[in-house]
Amino acid sequence: MSLVVIGTLAYDSIETPYDRRADALGGSALYFSVAAANFGVVRLVGVVGDDFKTPDLEGLANRGIDIRGVEIANGKTFRWSGRYEADWNTRHTLDTQLNVFEHFDPKLTPACRDASFVFLANAEPRVQMKALGQVQNPSFVVADTMNLWIDIRKDDLLELLARVDGVVLNDEEARMLTGEKNLIRAARKVLTFGPRYVILKKGEHGAFLIGEDAHFSLPAYPVDQVVDPTGAGDCFAGGFMGYVASAQSIEPRTLRRAMLYGTVTASFCVQGFSIEDIGKRTRSDVESRFNELLDITSV
Amino acid sequence: MSLVVIGTLAYDSIETPYDRRADALGGSALYFSVAAANFGVVRLVGVVGDDFKTPDLEGLANRGIDIRGVEIANGKTFRWSGRYEADWNTRHTLDTQLNVFEHFDPKLTPACRDASFVFLANAEPRVQMKALGQVQNPSFVVADTMNLWIDIRKDDLLELLARVDGVVLNDEEARMLTGEKNLIRAARKVLTFGPRYVILKKGEHGAFLIGEDAHFSLPAYPVDQVVDPTGAGDCFAGGFMGYVASAQSIEPRTLRRAMLYGTVTASFCVQGFSIEDIGKRTRSDVESRFNELLDITSV
Repeated sequence: MSLVVIGTLAYDSIETPYDRRADALGGSALYFSVAAANFGVVRLVGVVGDDFKTPDLEGLANRGIDIRGVEIANGKTFRWSGRYEADWNTRHTLDTQLNVFEHFDPKLTPACRDASFVFLANAEPRVQMKALGQVQNPSFVVADTMNLWIDIRKDDLLELLARVDGVVLNDEEARMLTGEKNLIRAARKVLTFGPRYVILKKGEHGAFLIGEDAHFSLPAYPVDQVVDPTGAGDCFAGGFMGYVASAQSIEPRTLRRAMLYGTVTASFCVQGFSIEDIGKRTRSDVESRFNELLDITSV
Repeated sequence: MSLVVIGTLAYDSIETPYDRRADALGGSALYFSVAAANFGVVRLVGVVGDDFKTPDLEGLANRGIDIRGVEIANGKTFRWSGRYEADWNTRHTLDTQLNVFEHFDPKLTPACRDASFVFLANAEPRVQMKALGQVQNPSFVVADTMNLWIDIRKDDLLELLARVDGVVLNDEEARMLTGEKNLIRAARKVLTFGPRYVILKKGEHGAFLIGEDAHFSLPAYPVDQVVDPTGAGDCFAGGFMGYVASAQSIEPRTLRRAMLYGTVTASFCVQGFSIEDIGKRTRSDVESRFNELLDITSV
């Protein structure tokens, strides 16, 4: 498969009602690549500071992630810290330090430029477009975004959406981007901005994919003990794109199965802080839970 | 099929952010029976006041509902009024007048006593048990309840739960009954109270069924314009039990399909005030949307 992801690598400090971690591995592209690595090689493009620990980079490489696109810049790695309320849905950002990511200028290696499957993890839309412009002949491009860019870079984001095949949004982002409260209507409105598919993530309530000729909805995998929801959306995207890239297909049936793989990888993610759970899972773990989810959701 | 439902018939006054209705048909057993009537005869047991309009009773009979178990008492029919916020999830009860329902003493007709499938719609647990005690040899009994009884009649409710095969709860009720925030854990804990199955309704987020040997989860049917959510849970139960009774089976595959039928009948319900939408649907409408939901949720 030829899958590339462009986005952040970070050190996160996270507080939950039950526990906390300081300086744990995080970042949208990092989570994505760890989740996608169960399906084959994923090429990771991003930037870290010179404080990024060598064993952390080696750990990614050992998972089969191509880290040659990770630039090591002078300065500190992107840092985020946040706190979750007991309902897990309310998240307070305590601090964001862009550090070396502030002037991130993505430079894709030849192997990355050659990718067929591209995931533009959350970043400023202009940066996402700059990365996308370097891919020579992509066959399936999916972008993520966040409320901040919808708020302050909406024109750039709309320009990006006209150039991608799919977009992943959570419920809040979809409502904010469209002004529609009803999520189905919001998703349909996003389709008019250009992408063929909208993947709408609703956290513990599941996810759906909608397109002109496609509609698939599924509940979340029932996790009975959430430890840390950070990165779940990126892991969802990683499982989704990892499977699509490994299948080398964007047939409806592939996309439906990919939604299950996304759900499954996200479910591992939330069972541990950072990549503590998803980072040790094998394809066999993924397949086993895929079959369990298939059983739970099949009539 | 031999299906009986015991519960309320009411006149509801409802305000939504967009519209309102006064003195519209409502009540848990009434909604249930209208939804279940698409699958065969359903016998309705309840009480109305002498103000209950004859055409309203005739309308139910014309839907194929056996209304011989509806007692007409001196006094006024049960009345409820409520108001929904724009998110549809926040509901304010403005007024409840029990009226003739306050001293409801269920008396089942011979045909009702002979039923195999029994739905105990929301009522005081002692009343539900009194009704259940009159059914001679039920093969599948499902009960509903509400936050009020969990709060003030918990012991009675637990006594009831030990005597039924299934219970339908919404997310708030499941959490309140068990003290568990996580819905899967809450549902598993309810199983320890006696029922073989817990059906957990999450409104727009779908529903799941859990049992010792069963686990099935599905998203809601995507309704893009909600008009009035009142009665959706009762219509879900009506579609579920109506299908089970018509199939005369409680095999796992039947229960899974019944969850889809419940979802479909609930989706019609919320598209209109009162029974304005569900009350005019045919089995053919139900089957058509069942197939659509099956397509949306199948891998």
